[in-house]
Amino acid sequence: MKPYTAMSVEELQHELEGLRKEYRRYQALEMTLDMSRGKPCKEQLDLSMGLMDALNSDADMYCEDGTDCRNYGVLTGIDEAKVLLSDMMENNPDNIIIFGNSSLNVMYDCISRSYTHGVMGNTPWCKLDKVKWLCPVPGYDRHFGITEYFGIEMINVPMTPEGPDMDMVEKLVAADEAIKGIWCVPKYSNPQGYSYSDETVRRFARLKPAARDFRIYWDNAYGIHHLYDDHQDHLIEILAECKRAGNPDLVYKFASTSKITFPGSGIAAMATSLNNMEDIKKQMKRQTIGYDKVNQLRHVRFFKDIHGMVEHMRKHADIIRPKFEMVESIFDENLSGLEIGAWTKPKGGYFISFDALPGCAKAIVDKCKKAGVKLTDAGATYPYHKDPQDANIRIAPTYPPIEDLKTAATLFTLVVKLVSAEKLIAEKKNETVAAVEQEMDEKK
Amino acid sequence: MKPYTAMSVEELQHELEGLRKEYRRYQALEMTLDMSRGKPCKEQLDLSMGLMDALNSDADMYCEDGTDCRNYGVLTGIDEAKVLLSDMMENNPDNIIIFGNSSLNVMYDCISRSYTHGVMGNTPWCKLDKVKWLCPVPGYDRHFGITEYFGIEMINVPMTPEGPDMDMVEKLVAADEAIKGIWCVPKYSNPQGYSYSDETVRRFARLKPAARDFRIYWDNAYGIHHLYDDHQDHLIEILAECKRAGNPDLVYKFASTSKITFPGSGIAAMATSLNNMEDIKKQMKRQTIGYDKVNQLRHVRFFKDIHGMVEHMRKHADIIRPKFEMVESIFDENLSGLEIGAWTKPKGGYFISFDALPGCAKAIVDKCKKAGVKLTDAGATYPYHKDPQDANIRIAPTYPPIEDLKTAATLFTLVVKLVSAEKLIAEKKNETVAAVEQEMDEKK
Repeated sequence: MKPYTAMSVEELQHELEGLRKEYRRYQALEMTLDMSRGKPCKEQLDLSMGLMDALNSDADMYCEDGTDCRNYGVLTGIDEAKVLLSDMMENNPDNIIIFGNSSLNVMYDCISRSYTHGVMGNTPWCKLDKVKWLCPVPGYDRHFGITEYFGIEMINVPMTPEGPDMDMVEKLVAADEAIKGIWCVPKYSNPQGYSYSDETVRRFARLKPAARDFRIYWDNAYGIHHLYDDHQDHLIEILAECKRAGNPDLVYKFASTSKITFPGSGIAAMATSLNNMEDIKKQMKRQTIGYDKVNQLRHVRFFKDIHGMVEHMRKHADIIRPKFEMVESIFDENLSGLEIGAWTKPKGGYFISFDALPGCAKAIVDKCKKAGVKLTDAGATYPYHKDPQDANIRIAPTYPPIEDLKTAATLFTLVVKLVSAEKLIAEKKNETVAAVEQEMDEKK
Repeated sequence: MKPYTAMSVEELQHELEGLRKEYRRYQALEMTLDMSRGKPCKEQLDLSMGLMDALNSDADMYCEDGTDCRNYGVLTGIDEAKVLLSDMMENNPDNIIIFGNSSLNVMYDCISRSYTHGVMGNTPWCKLDKVKWLCPVPGYDRHFGITEYFGIEMINVPMTPEGPDMDMVEKLVAADEAIKGIWCVPKYSNPQGYSYSDETVRRFARLKPAARDFRIYWDNAYGIHHLYDDHQDHLIEILAECKRAGNPDLVYKFASTSKITFPGSGIAAMATSLNNMEDIKKQMKRQTIGYDKVNQLRHVRFFKDIHGMVEHMRKHADIIRPKFEMVESIFDENLSGLEIGAWTKPKGGYFISFDALPGCAKAIVDKCKKAGVKLTDAGATYPYHKDPQDANIRIAPTYPPIEDLKTAATLFTLVVKLVSAEKLIAEKKNETVAAVEQEMDEKK
């Protein structure tokens, strides 16, 4: 098919007529589909029902070191859970703290603690005039939500398939002491599914921030969330790399089992240097007596070890891989060559990122909604919900049943075509008007 | 036996000789007993093992409203859990938020949020020169730990068997806008086991604080933790009373199932006005996607309803009541009439409070430790760990097996006698010296 961009107004109008008819047909279906969040589907959740049997009323509730997991204590998590999560995160168990059910909560608490008490003896951020943060875009809306809530000025840094624009990152952190952190989803990033290149990770580990309390918030949410066995991204382990580079305290690394077992009922963890851990524990011991050790033990008994976890992730992949592939093939089939959108083809994670023609994202999301398909709000992948191009849309293919997803993805491509055609017609008309006006001006 | 206070130096020295011999006999036993924290014992934890069967791999993981508890969402907790906890807390389910595993964490987060973002539009506390807090003493060390961590100036308010000295509370909160809160454990208080009288609760509900962002931190940790069926304290429900008094937003009320099921693996909750809830939810939605709904559902399925919970608490009481009674009878037997200590006889909760002669608490705790019995640090029941009288000791009788507890309580009374005798001898000698000196002065 001819690219829309190369079509005349008449050709586009003819095209639009068919698209509108087709769109009304979809509206008549009265669908209600939710593709807005990166949620596992029912079949994925069913994979972890064995977790519910991992501890029954006859279970031995003791840790190997004799701790009764049912009672108070053990601030930083039971040893067995540290071993399992350290294997998952590729860190030393001594560098791991196990928290509650949400790594987002851990990140929030890190920023809140820095705000109220400072980082390793530095001035609490609430006493500073200005705190700034680097935000690779597009990115994760809930990250941006935390920094926005604390009134931290967010600076957009463009993402590339290799990771954030490191020239910009290096320059900014070296120049501005007010910049205290950066949000990173380094593997199968949200929403593009990009993984940081070796060079990007090495440059991160060698950053020379002006602020001594600058920390990289390394949210490795999709560390073992591959779609393929034989076709995986690899990420250099950041803590080890920072240590090698002489920057041992530069990074807070986060992970959780939210998309491994049950979102909301998994365990979250942080890996960081011993210095950072000491700093964090000073606050933790005031905040809580300890996190849910029974759930930690439950996870350990269920997976046994990292091999069990990897096998488990293979089953997740088998369920969601066809969904990703189906969306991609519908996009290919319906949009290829039209020059009205580009999309990513991740090898893992939970999202596909779609870039529409500038100025079209909001209209596309809106029109999908009016036909019963809820997408992540346009703009959500940018700080302050402001996508300067109004172009980026996050596609979350995991949750809907595959047949629904097929319908939703087809509708999506239809809407992309429809909105793009409308936009191009308007542009071309404006151009014609402008050209006519210019001609008339010249004649005067 | 004659009161120690009435004995002569010689009588006391004779007494001391026997006590020291006896103490050395205890030291030779090389015990290691921990009575330092209010922890349930193994038999109590065993009561809740059925919780581990409440959800197995065949379980229906859906709420009554169709929510799959295994997936993301439901910020403030599942309806069923709100109903159960509201029955436990005597509040409307609409006024309840269900959190994670720790009510201490909820309290910390309330103070942290007030510090970073203020309470209902008032100035964030980090922007104020001074924040103060009322601390009924003796009280709960972890409460004081939070306010200390935030640099909040803590003001001691004496406890009475009716609750805090309300004349002092009323006067202080009305006079000083810097006073932003008060720690309360209103029922079976930590450590005295006192329950606030009806008048105390009514006066709390009618406080007229100078600060609009003053909140009562009402930690009803032992609301259903009775030792007796027929012999219970009753507490007026504070939210309803505040509403009646025209002060609906005055209180944050906290509770948890930590000492009902498993400490660290229970569920925590807060009850407060709808205004306060709206204020809190603005922050919560940034901090987390939601708390552990599977564990909420597990608790609901295990207890079914409040009656199930009450029956369950009866079993707890059957296990720990003999421990309380045993300690009290040993105290009665060994210390009555000696005028060297006073202790409380609570009808619920987790602690007995012991007041030694002024200046003796540290020495008693220290000597117990040297004979293998670990008590809560002396001073811990006061802000900044400073008991101005060095008199109060918290006794936590629930954790040790009853035979060990008997030994520990007997040792404790022995040590109280020993330290008191030493102190009285020193005092009496000083008095003699002083008297002789005075006599000599007069002769000059």
